[in-house]
Amino acid sequence: MNSINIVLVQQKMYADYQANLDYSIAKIQTAAKNGADLVVLCELHSSLYFCQEESFQYFNLAQTIPGPLTDKLAETAKDNNVVIVGSLFEKRADGLYHNTAVVFDKDGSLAGFYRKMHIPDDPGYYEKYYFALGDLGFTPIQTSIGKLGVMVCWDQWFPESARLMALAGAQVLIYPSAIGWDPRDDANEQQRQFQAWQIIQQSHAIANNLPLISANRVGLEKDTSNKTAGIDFWGQSFVADTMGKIIVQASSKNAETIQTQIDLTEIEKTRQLWPYLRDRRIEAYNDLNKRYIDES
Amino acid sequence: MNSINIVLVQQKMYADYQANLDYSIAKIQTAAKNGADLVVLCELHSSLYFCQEESFQYFNLAQTIPGPLTDKLAETAKDNNVVIVGSLFEKRADGLYHNTAVVFDKDGSLAGFYRKMHIPDDPGYYEKYYFALGDLGFTPIQTSIGKLGVMVCWDQWFPESARLMALAGAQVLIYPSAIGWDPRDDANEQQRQFQAWQIIQQSHAIANNLPLISANRVGLEKDTSNKTAGIDFWGQSFVADTMGKIIVQASSKNAETIQTQIDLTEIEKTRQLWPYLRDRRIEAYNDLNKRYIDES
Repeated sequence: MNSINIVLVQQKMYADYQANLDYSIAKIQTAAKNGADLVVLCELHSSLYFCQEESFQYFNLAQTIPGPLTDKLAETAKDNNVVIVGSLFEKRADGLYHNTAVVFDKDGSLAGFYRKMHIPDDPGYYEKYYFALGDLGFTPIQTSIGKLGVMVCWDQWFPESARLMALAGAQVLIYPSAIGWDPRDDANEQQRQFQAWQIIQQSHAIANNLPLISANRVGLEKDTSNKTAGIDFWGQSFVADTMGKIIVQASSKNAETIQTQIDLTEIEKTRQLWPYLRDRRIEAYNDLNKRYIDES
Repeated sequence: MNSINIVLVQQKMYADYQANLDYSIAKIQTAAKNGADLVVLCELHSSLYFCQEESFQYFNLAQTIPGPLTDKLAETAKDNNVVIVGSLFEKRADGLYHNTAVVFDKDGSLAGFYRKMHIPDDPGYYEKYYFALGDLGFTPIQTSIGKLGVMVCWDQWFPESARLMALAGAQVLIYPSAIGWDPRDDANEQQRQFQAWQIIQQSHAIANNLPLISANRVGLEKDTSNKTAGIDFWGQSFVADTMGKIIVQASSKNAETIQTQIDLTEIEKTRQLWPYLRDRRIEAYNDLNKRYIDES
């Protein structure tokens, strides 16, 4: 395909699993009616962001693949003839869990899944407690509409992962996300954080000459441990073109779907004008697999 | 040092070598009087951007290290007690040339130099004709005011080089540049290109939690081969903080110096809040030294 009609679902999540899922499904159905080839949901779109505290009770939210959530997404993909990028708290084995993105093709088949590779851990985002490090690497997922470079949230901050997806043939970078503000921070600091988040992702589009889709959740979710003021998820999901320019962006406050086209023929055109892949100094990059280059 | 007082010289270049050099030296002297610890000059600040055409006559512009240009920069550094980042067309041996950044410490000693690693080549920027690929890697240069991650222009577009400088202990990323618009492009396209250029550099500051200095030339330079409309160097030199926020930016039209402070204590503070160096998946990055990951 030369062009993909995409819908991105910026969702506000609630404690009610079924309500969250019903909302996602309804938005996918509407998107498909409006001509979408691809619908991208947010990270962990069936629950509140439970990682605000470390509590073993939340392991009950995890599901296997296949399982009820992926069965429902598969059925919805097939019934609506649309590719879906979903996200779940995956139970891989007893006591082994991942933060996983799943991709269903238009025929309802599981095109592939991606287990979040970079796992954050800082106050309010205790993900290292819940999720094991992904072990599938950065491999794009082949679908009937193209090769999707699906990653998850914290991966956004690492140029390495976007580059590896591009080198492996990804035609679009996709980041389901769950990131927000500490309500106690002032507006300047909040804006500084949001801008950094958007700019680092725009840079992946630029560095790799690829379109990029970032789907973030929205709305204030309380910290059930009452240690913090909760997280005000900043929404502002967006789509960028192969030069990193923002094509469309959602609001910071509301649940919203946004629809646009991405033109895959722009990838080669942009790469001919800005030939970074030609000029990478691969023989000088070996130390990128070091933690740090200590002084000898 | 916890804080560096920096001056960035956005210069318009002419055919007259001595006039260009005199201008640079005058700006360094003024900067030092105003308290600068560090002055950053543009890429190839002693000449017009001769790479607009391929002509062997321009090899005459190349100078050795040491040579007249570096002698003058060394003397100016010592006389004014200031660190200087300069740039020259380096003659390394008969018929072997580089695009090289040089760093002089406050005592006039050559702290180190960097040979441009990523060399562009596209219409109007025929650098592969003039410059051999740098072979010194991405090694920060130790000075009395800190470890400087000096690169040059096209390196700006590669997240790998910024990351390697950061891993090797750079405390600031510095890019002397020579990039501009094709005057035949419309304002939208011009803005799209400038934005991509600025965003990719902001992203290096963000990804590595480092301040960044980008010094670009300014002004229209004709294409002496008359094949194109020349290059309108877009100026807009800037300094970004450890979250990629623009602290100060020069105009797109005028020669200008800008002065500001960068706070090196922000590096560790930012890294504690945004611990990317902790979370890099180094065991999964080996394919970054491949040209492309071909399907097996």
